[in-house]
Amino acid sequence: MAGATPMAATTPVNVYGPPLSTAVSRVLACLLEKDAPFQLIPVNMAKGEHKSPDYLKIQPFGQVPAFQDQSINLFESRAICRYVCDQYASQGYRGLYGTNPLVKASIDQWIEAEGQSFSPPSSLLVFQLVFAPRMKIKQDENVINQNVEKLSKVLDVYEKRLGESRFLAGDEFTLADLSHLPNAQYLVNGTDKGELFNARKNVARWWDEISTRDSWKKVVEMQNSPPA
Amino acid sequence: MAGATPMAATTPVNVYGPPLSTAVSRVLACLLEKDAPFQLIPVNMAKGEHKSPDYLKIQPFGQVPAFQDQSINLFESRAICRYVCDQYASQGYRGLYGTNPLVKASIDQWIEAEGQSFSPPSSLLVFQLVFAPRMKIKQDENVINQNVEKLSKVLDVYEKRLGESRFLAGDEFTLADLSHLPNAQYLVNGTDKGELFNARKNVARWWDEISTRDSWKKVVEMQNSPPA
Ligand SMILES: N[C@@H](CCC(=O)N[C@@H](CS)C(=O)NCC(=O)O)C(=O)O
Ligand SMILES: N[C@@H](CCC(=O)N[C@@H](CS)C(=O)NCC(=O)O)C(=O)O
Repeated sequence: MAGATPMAATTPVNVYGPPLSTAVSRVLACLLEKDAPFQLIPVNMAKGEHKSPDYLKIQPFGQVPAFQDQSINLFESRAICRYVCDQYASQGYRGLYGTNPLVKASIDQWIEAEGQSFSPPSSLLVFQLVFAPRMKIKQDENVINQNVEKLSKVLDVYEKRLGESRFLAGDEFTLADLSHLPNAQYLVNGTDKGELFNARKNVARWWDEISTRDSWKKVVEMQNSPPA
Repeated sequence: MAGATPMAATTPVNVYGPPLSTAVSRVLACLLEKDAPFQLIPVNMAKGEHKSPDYLKIQPFGQVPAFQDQSINLFESRAICRYVCDQYASQGYRGLYGTNPLVKASIDQWIEAEGQSFSPPSSLLVFQLVFAPRMKIKQDENVINQNVEKLSKVLDVYEKRLGESRFLAGDEFTLADLSHLPNAQYLVNGTDKGELFNARKNVARWWDEISTRDSWKKVVEMQNSPPA
């Protein structure tokens, strides 16, 4: 798809929100894969800046991330990623959103599987196991147990799929795989539930392969470096 | 995007699942908007056919719908809709998935808002208020109240947006609006929660406009006609 702005490749885009947010880090990974220059605009969530009238103008649900370039304001991490892939089609890693309609359809299918099936239990577990303790919120054992069970069933499907193909949408790493990185990173490295991934042979092989890409290692570095 | 199969426009595609399913009806509405010929393949969910080994080959999560044409098997209703729009780009209602990158990005943004923010509380309410009674499952008042509250907040955002533009992604009806039809139809016409939509001026105007399209009226007819 043709870029709407010829300058897109060199003018940095704005991404609002902290890299520690899973949805923000999804967008950052995508921008890094596409060699797209960006600047991070801090949003102080502890102070409720994501619910301020000015911020709600660019993200009406009061969530991070929000995205801005010369042509458009966007929210919703997976929509932002699709747009970035279309705008920067000819630079960075070209296969990220496929190069033919059938591969693109398969990528869309697995992005939806991530958003609809993988993300809901994963996000609840990341909240309960990683953020609740940091925020001194009491953990809910029921929520944890129910969502471990839900996520296990989803990962059983992935285990089978990843026994048949190297990546979710086929032989190449794509946006479908990338979309899983943020929640999986916390679950594997920040909780005692890493076995959900590591005990499944194909999922473990896949996780190892996708999480060691330079783009993702860079995002994890950004997450671990103290805010300026 | 170029069609992968020149025959796509005339050979019917297969859609597996009952039109009463919200995810199936999303795909049917899209096919009707694109004048794409299809045949419905029944899946007897009461008998658990959606969990049978054969069906799991085309929908590994054991859900409806599944989709099949000469080139591809797909699952996930929103991914199927995107593919249908790309394959049948030059027929039916051409604006369904936009005709330029900025409109397409806005459509993707609002499809994601539907999938991530509107659908979770709506689907839970549709299950509790419509399907649980039919299946003689006890309703959970807490789930109902919590999700009415969640959906109200989402619809407040929509009310504002639809005060600024006629449809979610801009001046034209698109896949973003269409994606809301299945759950909204049940909530407005099959429960006592229709006020969530009708009491919001812009949402009510929008609902009236999108639900009276020929494509959707046809889907509702299919939902109401007894299975053959
Ligand atoms: N579906 C949205 C989800 C965004 C989201 O949930 N962001 C979280 C941080 S990861 C947030 O802003 N939470 C604060 C809130 O919801 O108030 C996306 O993918 O962009
Ligand atoms: N995200 C999927 C959801 C599909 C879905 O939830 N289908 C329901 C019927 S509307 C189903 O098959 N439920 C049976 C089950 O999950 O076992 C899509 O959009 O296609």
